[in-house]
Amino acid sequence: MTWHQTTIQISEKSRGFHLVTSEILRQVPELAQIKVGLAHFFIQHTSASLALNENADPTVRHDLEAHFNQIAPENMPYFRHTLEGPDDMPAHIKAIMIGESITVPITNGRLNLGTWQGIYLCEHRDYGGERRVVVTINGEENTQ
Amino acid sequence: MTWHQTTIQISEKSRGFHLVTSEILRQVPELAQIKVGLAHFFIQHTSASLALNENADPTVRHDLEAHFNQIAPENMPYFRHTLEGPDDMPAHIKAIMIGESITVPITNGRLNLGTWQGIYLCEHRDYGGERRVVVTINGEENTQ
Amino acid sequence: MTWHQTTIQISEKSRGFHLVTSEILRQVPELAQIKVGLAHFFIQHTSASLALNENADPTVRHDLEAHFNQIAPENMPYFRHTLEGPDDMPAHIKAIMIGESITVPITNGRLNLGTWQGIYLCEHRDYGGERRVVVTINGEENTQ
Repeated sequence: MTWHQTTIQISEKSRGFHLVTSEILRQVPELAQIKVGLAHFFIQHTSASLALNENADPTVRHDLEAHFNQIAPENMPYFRHTLEGPDDMPAHIKAIMIGESITVPITNGRLNLGTWQGIYLCEHRDYGGERRVVVTINGEENTQ
Repeated sequence: MTWHQTTIQISEKSRGFHLVTSEILRQVPELAQIKVGLAHFFIQHTSASLALNENADPTVRHDLEAHFNQIAPENMPYFRHTLEGPDDMPAHIKAIMIGESITVPITNGRLNLGTWQGIYLCEHRDYGGERRVVVTINGEENTQ
Repeated sequence: MTWHQTTIQISEKSRGFHLVTSEILRQVPELAQIKVGLAHFFIQHTSASLALNENADPTVRHDLEAHFNQIAPENMPYFRHTLEGPDDMPAHIKAIMIGESITVPITNGRLNLGTWQGIYLCEHRDYGGERRVVVTINGEENTQ
């Protein structure tokens, strides 16, 4: 049984949905040592999300951004939390809806994702800056 | 300390919200060996979800399907990801909103669910086919 | 390696989003013993949620309640699950959207939250009563 825990950075992204599987995985080489276990990825922010979705056609990411802007529009008349800009409150709504963490099974040293699944950073702010992610890995190590 | 990991199948379901607690649990008898721990259920798809919700009145499942079709309608004019059919992009939106995994406490060999909680397969496609779920169980075993 | 599991109560809250970090943490002193691990908080209900979001400005909580009431309004004409009152079906929708559990990394005896992150109880019912949360903590203990 092993625990690995590390805090990694995801480079600044524009507002929208971004595929970051390889940007994240190259920062957690310890995954390769785990035969069976779980990897937990936790973003330490309240206006960006981690999620899993399609890793192939980039129009999926476009359409997610377009539609979540309909679900959580800027400048709703009942918004009181407006001091940090019109993009801030919609960002909190999207963050609580999509969530701040993902947990993924590890099998034979790799994330056991489906064929079409990739890790998304969902940047809900116009200028969110770098994002911090705490990665916690727990499992049985390979013995050879 | 024990890890169990297995990939199970959930049989094809119609589009909508389905109670699958017993279909899942009969495929993971190893749960009964765990005194205290966690069970992680992970669907390897980007157009279906796993979730927890009411296990009693089936009208809850009807109303969830009806309302999520309002939140994520087909044929939005800004959708570009349309090649896989009008049900595909709404399916991705619902999947990222509801999520692809659930983590449930295990206590004395059973999922420690609330009285009214059951596991849902949320099938967002018209014809989604069989769905694959990776189940990862981690905990302390019963000693007797 | 240690497992701790306990069921705690969160006192009755009004409908809306509530910051409950300290109400929860004072009921799980075992956290202080864990050097590296994960804490899982699981609400045993289908009409309330646990989530993470901003711990500072209370207007964020106001605006979340206002906007989720737009996303999941009462009395939609297609609702069939109406016997438990007009607030019940919207509560199920919000619960499945926001989720019933959170998993948070533990580092050196504390939840490794971001500066602005706090734990929310999202009470979706008008009169939800006390809420039960199963807390499961798993990790390596401090050795001194």
